[in-house]
Amino acid sequence: AKEMKMSDAKKIVPPTGPLTYDDVSSVSPALELYTKKTLLGGLWKRPELSSRDRSIVTVAAIIARMQMYEMSIHFALALDNDVKPAELSEVITHLAFYAGWGNAMAAISVAKDLFRQRGIGIDQLPPAKGELLPLNEEAEKQRATQVGNNFGTVSPGLVQNTTDLLFRDLWLRPALAPRDRSLVTVSALIANGQTAQIPYHLNRAMDCGLRQEEAGEVLTHVAFYAGWPCAFSALPVVKDIFEKRTK
Amino acid sequence: AKEMKMSDAKKIVPPTGPLTYDDVSSVSPALELYTKKTLLGGLWKRPELSSRDRSIVTVAAIIARMQMYEMSIHFALALDNDVKPAELSEVITHLAFYAGWGNAMAAISVAKDLFRQRGIGIDQLPPAKGELLPLNEEAEKQRATQVGNNFGTVSPGLVQNTTDLLFRDLWLRPALAPRDRSLVTVSALIANGQTAQIPYHLNRAMDCGLRQEEAGEVLTHVAFYAGWPCAFSALPVVKDIFEKRTK
Amino acid sequence: AKEMKMSDAKKIVPPTGPLTYDDVSSVSPALELYTKKTLLGGLWKRPELSSRDRSIVTVAAIIARMQMYEMSIHFALALDNDVKPAELSEVITHLAFYAGWGNAMAAISVAKDLFRQRGIGIDQLPPAKGELLPLNEEAEKQRATQVGNNFGTVSPGLVQNTTDLLFRDLWLRPALAPRDRSLVTVSALIANGQTAQIPYHLNRAMDCGLRQEEAGEVLTHVAFYAGWPCAFSALPVVKDIFEKRTK
Repeated sequence: AKEMKMSDAKKIVPPTGPLTYDDVSSVSPALELYTKKTLLGGLWKRPELSSRDRSIVTVAAIIARMQMYEMSIHFALALDNDVKPAELSEVITHLAFYAGWGNAMAAISVAKDLFRQRGIGIDQLPPAKGELLPLNEEAEKQRATQVGNNFGTVSPGLVQNTTDLLFRDLWLRPALAPRDRSLVTVSALIANGQTAQIPYHLNRAMDCGLRQEEAGEVLTHVAFYAGWPCAFSALPVVKDIFEKRTK
Repeated sequence: AKEMKMSDAKKIVPPTGPLTYDDVSSVSPALELYTKKTLLGGLWKRPELSSRDRSIVTVAAIIARMQMYEMSIHFALALDNDVKPAELSEVITHLAFYAGWGNAMAAISVAKDLFRQRGIGIDQLPPAKGELLPLNEEAEKQRATQVGNNFGTVSPGLVQNTTDLLFRDLWLRPALAPRDRSLVTVSALIANGQTAQIPYHLNRAMDCGLRQEEAGEVLTHVAFYAGWPCAFSALPVVKDIFEKRTK
Repeated sequence: AKEMKMSDAKKIVPPTGPLTYDDVSSVSPALELYTKKTLLGGLWKRPELSSRDRSIVTVAAIIARMQMYEMSIHFALALDNDVKPAELSEVITHLAFYAGWGNAMAAISVAKDLFRQRGIGIDQLPPAKGELLPLNEEAEKQRATQVGNNFGTVSPGLVQNTTDLLFRDLWLRPALAPRDRSLVTVSALIANGQTAQIPYHLNRAMDCGLRQEEAGEVLTHVAFYAGWPCAFSALPVVKDIFEKRTK
């Protein structure tokens, strides 16, 4: 084995441009074929989820996993798949809270060029503040009380912010339909292996109209973008949720 | 739904510059307001953690999660918040071991420009090798024996390196106060969802002076930078640690 | 504490070039020494794993964790350590499925320049489609039946794709020896903290010839590239596998 020399690194300039199919096939002809046939020509054409939903799921997964090379293509495809610019904007805002501020900033670094390129101006974006969707005060009080009882003394700040910023603000912003906002959340959770939060959010999504067949297909879809292990880790959790909802 | 064409990707040049508030608001006016008001004007002004501690927690979380777009701003802010250059250097060194070599290298790629810009020279950096803090031989022998008994035959190399490189070297480097080094570790563990290691390291942090109120606020803070699910996954673990310490 | 101003970010241009030892020591002389002495001069010279295996493990871990700054160096080192171009190509293809499409694309963005630089043409790459290795039909039917019984109604798409794309296609591509393909998979799982899938894949690797001493050393090695917490989370899982195999 040769000695590894850091100076060798100088000869390789880091990537600067978007990838083309030629780039992919110059390294892996197989991956070019899998992308064209299995992914775009296969997965994306399955009827179990609409193209628009697939775009929502994909955008959420790639932002959650900060996959920069997928963002250009999939943000553009989302807009072409009838995800409104305001909705794409709101997915990014939502994931600042559910995947981390830096993940949202990475998404913005790509989205800003796309929006400028397509002439998407502030009139098409959700306002910073505006009218909120109605809140189920009963359910929210119950949630807040439970979390407060469990963890109110452990991290008062986190518990309070969860109520004030998430459930009484972010989740009530109208720029995403509740079903879609939940779909974004569930997709990000699966992509990041955060199985403990899947039950609450998948139930919420299904209460808002996500059908069981669609939920199962989210796993099929996210497996490609976050990797098979993430999907398989979520499988038993999702199975348990389906079984409980059927009773 | 339109056919996705890889050639569409060519029209979108990948991001090359740092983000400004205008960039953010061109995609999400809401995120611009959340950043200014909720994050900088809210979270960062809470008294439960000092600004300096908040910077340490933030830098650790963003290196652990390799959030490149946050690094420029927060490395600079850390220095402005009285984190010494030597301490910022040492956080990066520490996270090479606790988040992975590539995460540290990503951090260095940003820090080198900041250090050069601010004229921070080698005289301000921790030496490669130097005098170490005193070691509690009794406690270390106990830890090493326990880990050796449990896993010595599974991965002798990992077990030996843990003793030689981490507990008899890295953890004794004086460039970070023990409390701060533990705070870095705990923040990175929460940010990466590595809850199994939180008990040991949070107890160590609190033994070194991190107060319960501060520890709870670390969760409040990391929620923004690593996402709410990471903070909520850590909550029950942290609660359990607090309860055991109170007995 | 100073007010954080987003405008400060403008003064710091994001990283554009590969890192040199001078870059590293300009931030952390310690990390330069740890890299040269502990990592390259220490870990990489340990006999428990061959250099070629170490390269396979490293490449898998850094693709799984999308560590861009390590990719240039380690893809080149892999080729110098007798990993054939076709094998490096196939590692990337494999990890599109096991770490996510975007991770593979990030790897391709680096590999394409290396391949072009070294004049590696399509004749040296695995074909998109070709003859497959023989399949143990009995074992595969058993696996498929078990997974189908458990999860066939939860996500029919995921279950079917697992059979069609992974076990009847990807895993039978000859461009990687079965032992090596399993080694790639195990390394990625450890690096991503996906412990639930480690038993199946580590057993598969050891059935294909990965020795216990080598498997233990994978943990020693991945600890550096994915961070100590990942290795320690995998330790009890690996211990359990070793114990069951010994009976």
